[in-house]
Amino acid sequence: MINVAILGFGVVGSGTAEVIEKNKDVIKTKTGADLVIKHILDLRDFPGSPFEKLVTHDFNDIINDKEVDIVVEAMGGAHPAYDFSKAALEAGKHVVTSNKLVVAQFGTELLEIAEKNGVRYLFEASVGGGIPIIKPMMSDLAQNRIDGISGILNGTTNYILTQMSENGAEFADALKEAQTKGYAEADPTSDIEGHDAARKIVILAALAYGKLISPDDIHCEGITKIDAKDVKFAEEMDGYSIKLIGHAEKVGDKILAFVAPRLIPTANPLHDVSDVFNGILVNCDMLGDAMFYGRGAGKLPTASAVVSDVIDIAIKSEMKAGSAKWTDAADDDIAPLSDHVCAHYFRIAGCVKCMEKVCDNIVHCVSENGETAFITKPMTEAEAFEKEKAFAENGTKVLSRIRVL
Amino acid sequence: MINVAILGFGVVGSGTAEVIEKNKDVIKTKTGADLVIKHILDLRDFPGSPFEKLVTHDFNDIINDKEVDIVVEAMGGAHPAYDFSKAALEAGKHVVTSNKLVVAQFGTELLEIAEKNGVRYLFEASVGGGIPIIKPMMSDLAQNRIDGISGILNGTTNYILTQMSENGAEFADALKEAQTKGYAEADPTSDIEGHDAARKIVILAALAYGKLISPDDIHCEGITKIDAKDVKFAEEMDGYSIKLIGHAEKVGDKILAFVAPRLIPTANPLHDVSDVFNGILVNCDMLGDAMFYGRGAGKLPTASAVVSDVIDIAIKSEMKAGSAKWTDAADDDIAPLSDHVCAHYFRIAGCVKCMEKVCDNIVHCVSENGETAFITKPMTEAEAFEKEKAFAENGTKVLSRIRVL
Repeated sequence: MINVAILGFGVVGSGTAEVIEKNKDVIKTKTGADLVIKHILDLRDFPGSPFEKLVTHDFNDIINDKEVDIVVEAMGGAHPAYDFSKAALEAGKHVVTSNKLVVAQFGTELLEIAEKNGVRYLFEASVGGGIPIIKPMMSDLAQNRIDGISGILNGTTNYILTQMSENGAEFADALKEAQTKGYAEADPTSDIEGHDAARKIVILAALAYGKLISPDDIHCEGITKIDAKDVKFAEEMDGYSIKLIGHAEKVGDKILAFVAPRLIPTANPLHDVSDVFNGILVNCDMLGDAMFYGRGAGKLPTASAVVSDVIDIAIKSEMKAGSAKWTDAADDDIAPLSDHVCAHYFRIAGCVKCMEKVCDNIVHCVSENGETAFITKPMTEAEAFEKEKAFAENGTKVLSRIRVL
Repeated sequence: MINVAILGFGVVGSGTAEVIEKNKDVIKTKTGADLVIKHILDLRDFPGSPFEKLVTHDFNDIINDKEVDIVVEAMGGAHPAYDFSKAALEAGKHVVTSNKLVVAQFGTELLEIAEKNGVRYLFEASVGGGIPIIKPMMSDLAQNRIDGISGILNGTTNYILTQMSENGAEFADALKEAQTKGYAEADPTSDIEGHDAARKIVILAALAYGKLISPDDIHCEGITKIDAKDVKFAEEMDGYSIKLIGHAEKVGDKILAFVAPRLIPTANPLHDVSDVFNGILVNCDMLGDAMFYGRGAGKLPTASAVVSDVIDIAIKSEMKAGSAKWTDAADDDIAPLSDHVCAHYFRIAGCVKCMEKVCDNIVHCVSENGETAFITKPMTEAEAFEKEKAFAENGTKVLSRIRVL
């Protein structure tokens, strides 16, 4: 049993509690970790919440509780987040955080304190929200020299740029829409000027190259000057998209890191990372290019990353690490394909009328030289098979049937 | 120090030796693991190879060597790969493999034997080549229920389908080209009929749902029946691409897994995974969609994944696991942006002639209503800045400058 205390019961803190409680059984089954939330620190009370009784207003209740193994810092801001993290590590407790500001500013010191005290300071949620990127950089890719990192690290700016691209919107209008939808804050400076991305790229660069650069020491250019015309021209020229990119590479012995809007060629996997999604492309000397893609922000995605760190500590503490667990499937465990539901693409040797005799729920259709291709609304595999039979009975040959993802 | 024996010195085996030797220092610095190759089993000798003296023809040299901690099985095929893996595990040695055939067929038994003997059986390289996917499924995503997995798991078929899409090629011609380029084998059956993808999707499904289904028990449909017309019509209708997808999901208590070509809508991140690249999309209940993208085959990418398993065992054996290591960057560690080289997009208030007065290395250009946008060949930041100055001196206003990724 691993006891967890959560500092701050805002978006990430309450999400962390939710993930631990909702998926207790999956976590136990897959990893053997038995996680228990013991304290929640917040200035507020939460009457009616299932976690009400765990709330304390006094950090000492946590730091003095010898049974607390892991402290999750989800307060945000530099202080007292940094001070509490430091105190927890000095008290021999592991600390897990989503706070990129603290990691980018005080990470070196906190990692040193953790090492001295035989505990760990983990921060998977500080970059890329829920996307596994910090642990892959630390372990899965550790046998590679990193030639470069390019990341779409900020969902707000990516949403704005996607709007500018898809609707031809100007920056100011796209920002306003992002604020209306809750993707941008009332004061969006940290996002649109690139400061948020700067904190994230220095953390990734530190993992790749072993040196933490202060975010204040790198070139940081936001997206406020991007004109709708730029987006249009870039697209016209060779299909380029424009994205805000945090980039780091080695130049000789030095580290080059900066944040700036970039044109992305169509062949680059970052080209189509749209809306609030993040994508991080890591160029490795052995593996080549690898991209990690997913939700870079949001309550449950970020909390998912926090809990992955908590589990990592739990399983290493209890030495249950890392073998897959499964049994052979019985026949009864396997569902037949006929249960599968999806839209279907058909191509028939026949006209639109032949199609309409058999199928009515058509989403797309194209007809050429006596052949008709069309896509249906979702149906079961069994229904799709019935359609094939019906075409045959009508004397219409089905040339292709392909399932739509 | 961790002693490694490699079974089979073919593509993956020799790649594994190369990654361990070439990146010994990075591995040591980043993870603390000190890896030594002690034996290489192969029927052949390798005179002149730097590994010549390590070669043995007798598996007993490895199984009886108490100093061997980890056996890398890179032989391929079912036998004797399975038999040697079993013997190694029973002798208390960890086993790492890239052999999806053995994992999909004998994985349950080998995992049980490993557990009984207090060692680990790892197979990161068996799915997605060099892409970290097995360990993320086992740990980073373990706090999520997996709603579904959809993967482009076979590089050969993805290359063929990409050719059919980009050049309008028919299947047979695209296959021939893939064979010429070395992307498809002389007997391509296992790839084009989907058998390779079937082995991989049952492994992923086992990690997600705890039950290993025999690849023979799932619906497996290859790409041989895809017509160039289907590719064309799919694209015409709403920009769909066609990819060979291994898919798994839970239907009630049962697992539904199958391999088939699918139409992929443009909004799906798998839509643009092209050529020999793989992409694996995992739908998680907390995190949402996450995609892992990279090289799904090839000597060094696959070897990179093998070595990541070796390191995972090494650091867990020596209990050095998992804290990031870095120091603060000194000024001297930081490269100036002026060193950065990339192509540049400019938009100027002026005509093509104004552009040509200052820039000659133009890759793309578009001119409209007195404004000209263009993309240059790569230049340093310092050179780009000089261009800006030159435009100003000529009285031409630079409206935008954006770096190209």
